[in-house]
Amino acid sequence: VQPASIERLAAAFARLPGIGPRTAQRLTYHVLTRPEDEVRTLAQALIEVKELIGECRICFNLAEGPECVICRDPRRDPALLCVVEGPADVLPIERTHEYRGRYHVLGGALSPVDGIGPQDLHLEELYRRVVAGDPDLPGDPGGTGSRITEVVVATNPTTAGEATALQIGADLGRLAPQVTVTRLASGLPVGADLEHADEVTLGRAFAGRRAL
Amino acid sequence: VQPASIERLAAAFARLPGIGPRTAQRLTYHVLTRPEDEVRTLAQALIEVKELIGECRICFNLAEGPECVICRDPRRDPALLCVVEGPADVLPIERTHEYRGRYHVLGGALSPVDGIGPQDLHLEELYRRVVAGDPDLPGDPGGTGSRITEVVVATNPTTAGEATALQIGADLGRLAPQVTVTRLASGLPVGADLEHADEVTLGRAFAGRRAL
Repeated sequence: VQPASIERLAAAFARLPGIGPRTAQRLTYHVLTRPEDEVRTLAQALIEVKELIGECRICFNLAEGPECVICRDPRRDPALLCVVEGPADVLPIERTHEYRGRYHVLGGALSPVDGIGPQDLHLEELYRRVVAGDPDLPGDPGGTGSRITEVVVATNPTTAGEATALQIGADLGRLAPQVTVTRLASGLPVGADLEHADEVTLGRAFAGRRAL
Repeated sequence: VQPASIERLAAAFARLPGIGPRTAQRLTYHVLTRPEDEVRTLAQALIEVKELIGECRICFNLAEGPECVICRDPRRDPALLCVVEGPADVLPIERTHEYRGRYHVLGGALSPVDGIGPQDLHLEELYRRVVAGDPDLPGDPGGTGSRITEVVVATNPTTAGEATALQIGADLGRLAPQVTVTRLASGLPVGADLEHADEVTLGRAFAGRRAL
């Protein structure tokens, strides 16, 4: 009992993650009440993001053009490299303002059960960066070799993320033993209480305890 | 630290109701992982819905073309008319499969504090339909006058919706005293328990009690 164009938009909204059929219907009605130029802005943004965004040739983060804004930024510390699973992991780290180095996006994590092995991730490119540097980037001019002194492995605290971190630690220990490889701390989230912490998190918090 | 086209799409998503900045960011990353034709389908659906959808000239429901699919349907009972506040109220009623008449969409509800008076709603058009009928519609051919015998007022059970229902009841009692005007029952929602019912709903449930 709905016009076909309404059904089509509701179906397209419902394909987005976390949006069920009722929310999709509500969004569709909302769109109908908005001015046409506002709706065109959303439609245009959808098309442009697909046309303009590709992978950074250095770090595989999302980029408009050949390099991402972080790799292009000369104020970034060339001695630090943070390894993440996906582009979505970069923004939360940037929000902390704790980290001023560059990134390397793996494109996933090792998971033999899902058929994801080392060749499916940007691991070779990571090792090449750590060993030989990024000759084209500001802060590493003339290709005088790598200035990276620390690799912070920020894969997720999951089975796949841990396996990936261990693999990177082992490989870099062999290929670039002068480089420090670190892992983000695991423990209780700030604001949580002990009573509701799961035993794995609490176990990690104990294992990683520090002197006050 | 994000490309401009990503920021634009996240901002456009965040203007949708119930979508905060984090969800907007997540949707944006999702779009980046989807095939281009799937994203174009959503963009195209957004533009088409604005281009194709207008108001039904009979009932003010959403319509592609001059009349909505319900007004055009000759199997609809021409004796029944259901009055709702907005187009979004039609679909939940249709889902019940309890109602086989036509609709009249008011475009809101009376609310003096919000400056919404009778002239802001499609009340005159409602009264004209009830008194004179819908001469152009199947089931009411040749303009032989109204066949409507019952008007079901399905405005929301809110202050504004109740005020609108009372107004319609009073006006139609004067203009079309032969027509029965009814109101949807108020009471406990199916599946609810008494313990958690608010007192207004419980009071309505008592007032509207029926013989078993």
